[in-house]
This record gives sequence, C-alpha cells and structure tokens, in this order.
Amino acid sequence: MNSFGICLTLSTFGESHGPAIGGIIDGFPAGFPIDTAKVQSALNARRPGRSALTTARREPDEVHFLSGIHPDGRSLGTPIGFIIKNTDAHSADYSDLENIYRPNHADFTTEARYGLRDHRGGGRASARETANWVVAGELARQLLDQYGITISANLIAVGDVTDSSEFERVILDAKERGDSVGGLVEAVVTGLPAGIGDPIFNKLDARLAFAALTINGAKGIEFGDGFRFAAMRGSEAADSFATDSDGRVITLSNHCGGIQGGITNGMPVVFRIPFKPTPTIARPLSTVDRNGNPVILEAKGRHDPCIAVRAVPVVKAITAFTIADMMIADGIIPHKFPPQHPIP
Amino acid sequence: MNSFGICLTLSTFGESHGPAIGGIIDGFPAGFPIDTAKVQSALNARRPGRSALTTARREPDEVHFLSGIHPDGRSLGTPIGFIIKNTDAHSADYSDLENIYRPNHADFTTEARYGLRDHRGGGRASARETANWVVAGELARQLLDQYGITISANLIAVGDVTDSSEFERVILDAKERGDSVGGLVEAVVTGLPAGIGDPIFNKLDARLAFAALTINGAKGIEFGDGFRFAAMRGSEAADSFATDSDGRVITLSNHCGGIQGGITNGMPVVFRIPFKPTPTIARPLSTVDRNGNPVILEAKGRHDPCIAVRAVPVVKAITAFTIADMMIADGIIPHKFPPQHPIP
Amino acid sequence: MNSFGICLTLSTFGESHGPAIGGIIDGFPAGFPIDTAKVQSALNARRPGRSALTTARREPDEVHFLSGIHPDGRSLGTPIGFIIKNTDAHSADYSDLENIYRPNHADFTTEARYGLRDHRGGGRASARETANWVVAGELARQLLDQYGITISANLIAVGDVTDSSEFERVILDAKERGDSVGGLVEAVVTGLPAGIGDPIFNKLDARLAFAALTINGAKGIEFGDGFRFAAMRGSEAADSFATDSDGRVITLSNHCGGIQGGITNGMPVVFRIPFKPTPTIARPLSTVDRNGNPVILEAKGRHDPCIAVRAVPVVKAITAFTIADMMIADGIIPHKFPPQHPIP
Amino acid sequence: MNSFGICLTLSTFGESHGPAIGGIIDGFPAGFPIDTAKVQSALNARRPGRSALTTARREPDEVHFLSGIHPDGRSLGTPIGFIIKNTDAHSADYSDLENIYRPNHADFTTEARYGLRDHRGGGRASARETANWVVAGELARQLLDQYGITISANLIAVGDVTDSSEFERVILDAKERGDSVGGLVEAVVTGLPAGIGDPIFNKLDARLAFAALTINGAKGIEFGDGFRFAAMRGSEAADSFATDSDGRVITLSNHCGGIQGGITNGMPVVFRIPFKPTPTIARPLSTVDRNGNPVILEAKGRHDPCIAVRAVPVVKAITAFTIADMMIADGIIPHKFPPQHPIP
Repeated sequence: MNSFGICLTLSTFGESHGPAIGGIIDGFPAGFPIDTAKVQSALNARRPGRSALTTARREPDEVHFLSGIHPDGRSLGTPIGFIIKNTDAHSADYSDLENIYRPNHADFTTEARYGLRDHRGGGRASARETANWVVAGELARQLLDQYGITISANLIAVGDVTDSSEFERVILDAKERGDSVGGLVEAVVTGLPAGIGDPIFNKLDARLAFAALTINGAKGIEFGDGFRFAAMRGSEAADSFATDSDGRVITLSNHCGGIQGGITNGMPVVFRIPFKPTPTIARPLSTVDRNGNPVILEAKGRHDPCIAVRAVPVVKAITAFTIADMMIADGIIPHKFPPQHPIP
Repeated sequence: MNSFGICLTLSTFGESHGPAIGGIIDGFPAGFPIDTAKVQSALNARRPGRSALTTARREPDEVHFLSGIHPDGRSLGTPIGFIIKNTDAHSADYSDLENIYRPNHADFTTEARYGLRDHRGGGRASARETANWVVAGELARQLLDQYGITISANLIAVGDVTDSSEFERVILDAKERGDSVGGLVEAVVTGLPAGIGDPIFNKLDARLAFAALTINGAKGIEFGDGFRFAAMRGSEAADSFATDSDGRVITLSNHCGGIQGGITNGMPVVFRIPFKPTPTIARPLSTVDRNGNPVILEAKGRHDPCIAVRAVPVVKAITAFTIADMMIADGIIPHKFPPQHPIP
Repeated sequence: MNSFGICLTLSTFGESHGPAIGGIIDGFPAGFPIDTAKVQSALNARRPGRSALTTARREPDEVHFLSGIHPDGRSLGTPIGFIIKNTDAHSADYSDLENIYRPNHADFTTEARYGLRDHRGGGRASARETANWVVAGELARQLLDQYGITISANLIAVGDVTDSSEFERVILDAKERGDSVGGLVEAVVTGLPAGIGDPIFNKLDARLAFAALTINGAKGIEFGDGFRFAAMRGSEAADSFATDSDGRVITLSNHCGGIQGGITNGMPVVFRIPFKPTPTIARPLSTVDRNGNPVILEAKGRHDPCIAVRAVPVVKAITAFTIADMMIADGIIPHKFPPQHPIP
Repeated sequence: MNSFGICLTLSTFGESHGPAIGGIIDGFPAGFPIDTAKVQSALNARRPGRSALTTARREPDEVHFLSGIHPDGRSLGTPIGFIIKNTDAHSADYSDLENIYRPNHADFTTEARYGLRDHRGGGRASARETANWVVAGELARQLLDQYGITISANLIAVGDVTDSSEFERVILDAKERGDSVGGLVEAVVTGLPAGIGDPIFNKLDARLAFAALTINGAKGIEFGDGFRFAAMRGSEAADSFATDSDGRVITLSNHCGGIQGGITNGMPVVFRIPFKPTPTIARPLSTVDRNGNPVILEAKGRHDPCIAVRAVPVVKAITAFTIADMMIADGIIPHKFPPQHPIP
C-alpha cells in the first residue's frame, strides 16, 4: 500500500518519468496557518543538481497545492492534495535498461513483485518519491515547531571518515573513480514531552524504524547506544531518574535514546541510520537481462555519488511526519485549532 | 493500538498480573491443518523458569484455543481466539513499586502516556506479552513451512563475547554480580521467493524493522551488511546478478541481505537485532517516586539476567508472522486452502 | 476482518458452540471509571431464555474481563479483553445439518466463502456474537453518558402491526403457527453536539449504516424521513435554521434526522432498521444438501420467533459504540481522563 | 479520513472551487489493460450542463492520469494518481454565503466540525467530489467486466411518480416552480459468484450501505425486500435453495437480494437508495448567519433540480468499486495478471 501514517497520513503516487508525482496529506488539523513558502524552501534543500555532490538532474521541484488550504492560508482540515511535475526526465538514458536488471536496484524485485515495471528512471522505486515526503514532512515540522519540538539530522560519517570537513573530499574522490560511497546519518529530536508512543504494537521506536527503513538506501537503525547495548552490562546501561530544577522528571544519562517501553521519557530522541553507497556507478558491473543472459552494465544516467547526503532532509521530513502523526493519534495535537488563536 | 499486521493480524490483551493474557489472530487462511501441539511446544521453548539463565517465574503457559479451529483441526477462516492464564504472579513483590519509577523500565513513560498504570509485574509492558506473539508466530511458521520457508534465529553475541560456548558463563557471571548483560540476535530466513514486499510504504525491511523494535529490549536492527554499508564503496557493495543451474536469477553475494527496494530478491533475508541488558538488576539504582522524591531502588522480583536469550524465539515468531502477513497481503498465500488438498 | 471501529475498536472471536466467545476493546480512554455490573445488566437484557418471545437457549452470559481495568475500576488505556463462555450449546441438535444448507441462513454462503464451516449452531454466523457487541456497547454508553448523550431503541412495528401493545400477541401467534415474523426498530440519539462525523468517506450516517447492516437479520436503514424523501419536494424537506433561547443554532424541523453532509447538526439523530423474520421456522422448507440433492428441512434447535425483539439492545449497543468511536476519532472524547477528575 | 476501501482504496482531495480535485487509486492489480477512454466516457455521463435536468455548471471534467499506468496501457500495480481541473467555478456567486448557513447543506455542520470552511461552491462537501468516484468506479467496473459481473443502476421513482416516462416532466415542473424533487435509485449486480463478503464486520451489505450513505443526498438503503421484511412472515420470506441445470446452487426466489449472512449467494444483488430533493431551491428559505442572526436566503448559483438523476452513475461507480475491493480482499481478483495473458 502507498499510505504512511495512522491519524496523519500521506498517500503518494508517481513514477520518476511520468508527468508528475504527488500526494494527499490527510488528517492535518484544521485552522493551522501553513507557510507554503517554507515548504518550497524545504524542497529546494533536497533538490538535486545544486552541487557536484549530487546528481545532475535538474528539477525545479515546484510544489502545487491543489486543496485543503483556505485562501487565507489556514488548513481547512480537509485533505491537502499536491503535485510536483517531472520536467527534466531523460527517459532515453534508460532505453537500454528496459530488459536489464541493474545490480542493487529494485528492477528485478519490482518485476518479480508486479510482473511488469516502468523501467524509466527506476519508475516508482526512484528516490524522486522522497520529494513528496519532504512536502509532507515540512507541514508536520511546522506543527511541531508550535510545540517547541525541533528535529535535526546530520551526516556523521561518509565511508570510513567521521570528520565532517573531509566529507566533500571523500565523496568527490569516489565520484572521480567512478565509484560511490555510503554514509551514516544521525537524527536528534528535542522538546518532546514524555508520554508519546504506544506500549505494544505502536512503539515510537518501532514507528521510527519503519519510517527509516522506508527511505531509499537505508539499511538499519539504532536508538541511543544501539548496537553497543549488546556488549553492555545492565549497571552501565542504566539511565537513572532524577528531577530537574522545575521538578520535571529527567534521566541523568540517555543511553536509551529518549524512548523507554516504546514511549518518550522527555529526553532527546536519538537515532542513527546507515545508508548504502549509491548502487549505480560508472564502472562495469555484471548482471543479467530478463531472459537470464549475462550482461555487463555500464551505467549512464545521472546519479548521486553518496545518497546519504540527500537522505539528510528526507530523514528529517519522515521523522517530523511520524512524530506529528503520533502526537495527533495520542490527542496531544488537536484536530482543530481555534479560529482566533490558531497557535497553542 | 494493540494490533499487529495488515491482512494477517494479531490483536492482543493482557497485563502481567491480571487473570490472563491472550489474543485474536484474524485473516488466517481457511482449511489449513493446524498443529496445536507444536504451538504448545513453541510456548514451552520461550517459557521462563527452565534454567539458571532465565527468570524463576514458573508459568505453565498453557494456550487455550477458543475459536477458529474446526473439530477436525483445520482452520475455519474465522478469528482464532486464545488465552494463556497467569498463574504464578507474585503481585506482592511489586507492592513497593506502586509509586516508584524503575530506571529503564516503562513505569514512568506508561504513566506519562495514560495517567495511570497497573504497576504489578510491569503491567501491560511486561515481556509476558511476547507469549501471545509466540502463539501467533508458530501458526504463521506452520503456514510458511508448507512453502519451504524456514526461519532461524540465534544469539551471536553476549556482552563482548561472540563465542557461543562462552555465553552461559558470561550470563551467569553477570547474574552472580547482581548485574545483567546485553546480547545480539541474528535471524536468517531462507526459501523466500523473489517479489515479497511493497516498494514504498510497506517495504519488507521496514515491516521487519517495525516488528523487531516492537520486541521488549530491542534497540535497533540492520539488514545484510547493515551499519558497515556506511563505510563501503559502491563497487564493494554490489551484489551482481547471475542465474543458477535452474535458470533462476540469483545474486553472487548477499551484502543487501536478500531485500532490494523493499522487496525480496530470492536470496536469504538476514538481519541482526541488539538487545539491551535487563534493566532490573540486584544492585542499588537511584531513581524517583511519583512525587519526584529521590529513591534508592533495590530490586526484588524475578528477572532474566540476559533478555536476549529469551528474545530468540520471539524474534523467530514475529518474523514468521510478518512474512506470512506479507505473503497473504501479496496474494501468494491464498485465503483458503481447498478442502481435500489443504497444502499447496 | 473481524474488527469494528476506527479509533475505538472491537475485535471479536467465537463460534456459537465453541468453548467461548469474546473480544478485545482497544482505544478505550484511560482513567475512566467502568461500571462492570452495568455491563452484566446489559448482557442480561439481551440474554435469551427469559420469555416465550425468545429462544429457549439458556446461557448465563457472564462476562469475564481479563485485562485493561485497574483493580480500582478505572480503565488503564490498555486493551480490554473479555470472554463469555458457551455453556448451553446443544450441538447434537445440529448434527443433521452438517451437510444441509438451511434457507436464508449463512450455511451455504459461509461454505462458498471459506470452503468449510462449523455447522453447530450456525458457527461464527450465529447471533450469539452480538453478546460481544453488547459488552462493548455498554462500555461506550457509559462514556457517552458523561457527555449527556442518550440512545434509545424501540420496536415500532411487528409484522403489519404498529401498536406496541399488540406485539406480543402477533409474535406468539406466529410462533404457534410454526412461523416467525419481521419487525422494525427505531433508534434516537439525543444530546449529540454539532460537528460529529466526517464530510466524505466517514460520514456519521455511513458509519451507522455500516453498523446497522452488520446486525444479523437487518435488511436496510433510513435516516430522518428516509425513503419518504424520494417523494418529497425540496420546499417540503427543508429544515430551516434558527437559534434557541441560548443562542444555539437549531433546526425548526428534523426531516434530515440530525445529520447534514455526514455530520451532526445538534438535533436528535433518528434512524430505523427493518429486520427480516427469523429464517428458521417449524415448517417444512425445501433446500439442498452439499451435493446438490433436494432435502425437505424440518427445523429443530431453539430459535426466536421474532429476531427484531432481541435486536433492540444490539441496535443500542452498536450505535453507542459507533458514536463513541467517532467522538474519540474527532478528539471530542479525550484519550485519557485526568487522574483526580475522571469525568468531564 | 478521506480514503475509501480496504485492499483497493481511493483517497481523494479537492474543494469545489479550488484549482483541481483528484485522487489516488491504490491496490489496483498489476498488468491489467486499462481503457482510459472509457473512464472519460463515464465522466462525461456524470457531467453536468448537458440538459435542462441538471445544473448549468459546465465543466469539461477531463481526467488526467499522472501515474500507475505503463505507456502500453497496462496497470503497473503502483498507485494511480489523477486530477480533474476545476474550470467553471463561479466563486462570486457564493460571496454572499460566506457567513450564512444554507438549510440542509453542510455549511453549518462543516463549520461545527472544523471551525472554518471554504464556502465557495460548498467546498469539500460539494457533489463535485463524486467525479473522483466515477473515475475510480470505472476502473473497478473494467475489472469486474472480465469476470462477467455487470452493474446496472436506474431511477425508479421521482417524487411520487414511478412511471419513468414521466420523470422529465416531474423534474422540469419542480424546476419551473423554483422547487426540487427527490428520487429513488435501484441497483442490480449480476454475475457475482457465491462467497463474496465477510461474515461479521465486513458484510457485503454493510459495505454497500456504507458506500451508499456516502453519496451526497442519500438517506437510506434497503436490500431485497428491505423494509417490507418487517411486515412479513418467515414462511413468506424464505428463499428456498435448489440447483440449476448445471448443478449450481440457486435460490428459487430472491427476497434477500442476493446476500445471506453478509455473503453473496450467487443470485443478483439488489438494493435501493432514496435521495432527498436538492436542498438549494429558488424560493426564500429562513436560516441564520454565523452570528445567529435570522436571514432570508434567496439562492443563487447553479443547481440540479433532482440530484437523484446525477446520482445514478455515482451509485454504479461506488458499487463497482466496493465489489472489486471485496473481491481483491477475498483473493478472487488477483494482485497481478500474468504478463502475456492479462485476462482471466
């Protein structure tokens, strides 16, 4: 299915080289003043073609809102429909690929799943879809902002390098060699009240894990101390409770990453997502065609040398959407804001 | 919400020290011969109280099926209701904890979420809930078995030790010191056909990540090379396609862990889940009570020194359930088996 | 699927002659004082075997709550599991029916749907299932009661008689002739605030229609003037708006039955549901067996001569549940009530 | 929420006077040859402005498919996005209505629900939304057609007249008097196999009732003998089973309207829906404004004198969609059609 979220939902559509991609955001509270200019800014931040670090595909990525927003800028409570036109699709670049399965792409698996596929630009499996998420995520972020919740996401490793000043060099180096490189993104959510998340089948960490693995190229997630927990003793891992000067319950450490039993404890929520290197590289790769014949593939098309770079705003977007959804589901964000005082 | 799954669903209920836990399995195909004895065996494998490695709580954990199964043993296609009675609940052990928040437990967060909680044995947040999942997972496993799909899950690290012959020693050592220890579980699913999973919002890896983070104490997940991908080059990470002697498309390596673009490629699905050390330890921990007063907590009650040990059958169960659900959703497992030939 | 509701859900299980029926109520707000004695009273009101008007099957219909309620009587916010044991099942009465399709029953269609069925007492299709709904409906009613919302349901016609003092005579007359008779139930919901319901795909009348047709033997529904609207002019059908002495917007007539554009307008919600006569009658009916051979069926078993009689509390229950669900979905009933002041 | 369906879903957006309306169809099987020209024809059949019987609003109602269809015309299995532009919106006609609640419209209830509304042309509550359903319904109809299933819907009464040759006269007569008139629509579905529908909470009649009451102006539904059942004896209402010359189980009458226990029995499914007269009429109606002041409303804008006329294709569309959804949910229509032989 092509919907994401429980009470605040995003349904999307679009193939990479069709006329447009787009979506419907449903369950967004009524009466909230939406800043559509900031949505466009968020899209611009994700947009390719702005530096040597990203693919040369140049899409204006202009979002057109078609419904759900009153002429005065407030949300109507009705579904917010939007489209983003595809304009710089070089479908001819892909004509050789109609019958070939690119390694580490979704070509083979899509065909196994559906029996056919739109081979142009990766079709539905293209990361172009993430532009839809950035639109929805920015609306969610504007909601969260009213509650003092902020989400940051940063690239903290590229290849085996963790010094951020070296990232550009490592990426360009890979690109020059006709290769690509992986990366690690860390997200931190601050300002969350305690009590968000459900205890069993809708744990906040389970929802965020679902969101994270939805991102193209993501291969895992860890919360707080994550995989290091496996090597720890309980006495090392304990996050003791205390109270701060306002009498608010806090923890003195944050090994758990702000989530206990699937529910926020009021401390920052911290998680990391590894991204694989871009699968399409300018080196010969052996693969097969639809008939099983061996093929040596020499990639054309335009690709990012490090998908983790452009994943950063996507991580931010999908995190904001997931948290806003949960806060609406849990009744913390209301279904409508009062007409005169739209902001809590 | 307390339901798991899309087409094959498990809804559960139950507090650790209430009269019973239980659930409803809905969407299970009709006409399938269910082996209820094997369900009980699976529950026995998860059951505590069998060795020094696990909690001393001794529950017979006998499953009572209440509906959905024809007297001849075949599934009716109607919901399968079941209960497991709680018999060895030592609620008095928890009377001191009514107003205290145990560190790294869900006491504080549950109260922040709901405004009240059943403090006895962790209430709804107790890992006792996972007995329900084992029931549902074993039914799913029996389905998958008919398709030649097998799921294995193993403990591959305990603390900083990866030699499995040392695990018992490490765990007992932690226990003797009044401490606990973390662990790492690896799962491998073989026999899956290519084409299982949805390409955008219902990727198989996203579903498995959701399932994994649902397990008590899980703090992350990675697929295939997982976090190591961040440090790799595209040329190292490529899984080249080829064909085997039967003409079936295979990959020559399995860096991606059997999932590409959210869909199985027919190779084994491989993932790992880190578990934190049991939070309750027999050492003094500082915390606060409901009024914010500092408390030194000295744990009573009965606890596993390494929750990763008992997580193994739970990983297996929830993986089987997730995959069977996806195969039903994708139409690969039918909604009913023919009366005379129940097995594909 | 065997779940009902969106935010407040009821999942049920149970065959008529299995060990028990039961269900899980999920999404019930936390901190609400539940009166379980009243749940039992509501079940007693639906219970058969109390008069000549209903079937002779005598079930104590005792509800056992297994979770979700704090020892002090307040809801925990966690799922409320319950079972009702089947004790007076005369399965032998049905042994002749294993291979026969009773006319106007679900025997044939169930087998067409699933390929097999539990023939004893109608299996899953038995109206015994409605006992589960009465449990859930009574909990919902207790919630609505706090908001001044009341639901009444009454039998307003039996056969071609609309004088309620004649109903008993008409029903017993049909019973004595070995026949059965239909009936019409009217429900009225008062005290609803304006603004409940969604404008497109979750209209309150659509939800109530879905609920009504879920009841065994229901064959339609109409709101307000209902089918008479087809014969009316717009000038006759208009419900003019005015304000009452408190300045509240009201309508001067209620042709529409309290719902406009799928949303309540604050006037009473009024609808009617026709019930077919009980299909099982003590007269020979021609039918076929599983092999298509003609059979003359002479009904045994115990049956109500007029299912509309026992449908009344079921209409009330499912209406209460649907409205409470919608009010939770729309954020009017909160997810949790404050600890000290549980009532709005 | 703004989604309809379970496995085959339609999510829609759009206000009457916004830039466009549209939707996303998800879960449509892959590999099916879609005839988009017939979708446009179905839209044309619903389109207003074609006769004196319908509103003078003239919309080209051209559907633009944006995704989900392969260049060769086959469905991709991915979501099918589409938009229909609004071009003949006379928003100025509605400027007087910004603060006024039109009787029997959704103006007051929408504002009660959301706190604000787009008053132009009825906003989201406009029947213009039904154009989206016609697009989705026609795609569903094309699927059903491959299984020999046909859906007819006809106007069988207008006002108190049941002779169809008189309908036009009755409608024009009402229009000339500045009035409007109600109508009754009957739908018949033939060719359905036995076994479609779920026995408890997803009965086919409950789904169809939900669909029917979703249509603007619908005020009820009845199946088979419907409300007449209330006045019948069981011996009159019985649909005896027999076998036809092919050995197929049939019923000798069809009082029940083709559905027993919520599941099709293979006979035609028959139901009727009453529609209220168009609420907007060219006569003065008393109402109030947002501040509660009395207002005499003299309607401007363009309206159908009998909404039942244009409801006919909408009934057909939403019925087709509901049945196709159920057949996909029940596994009768597959998730993908084979590449070379797309048709069963």
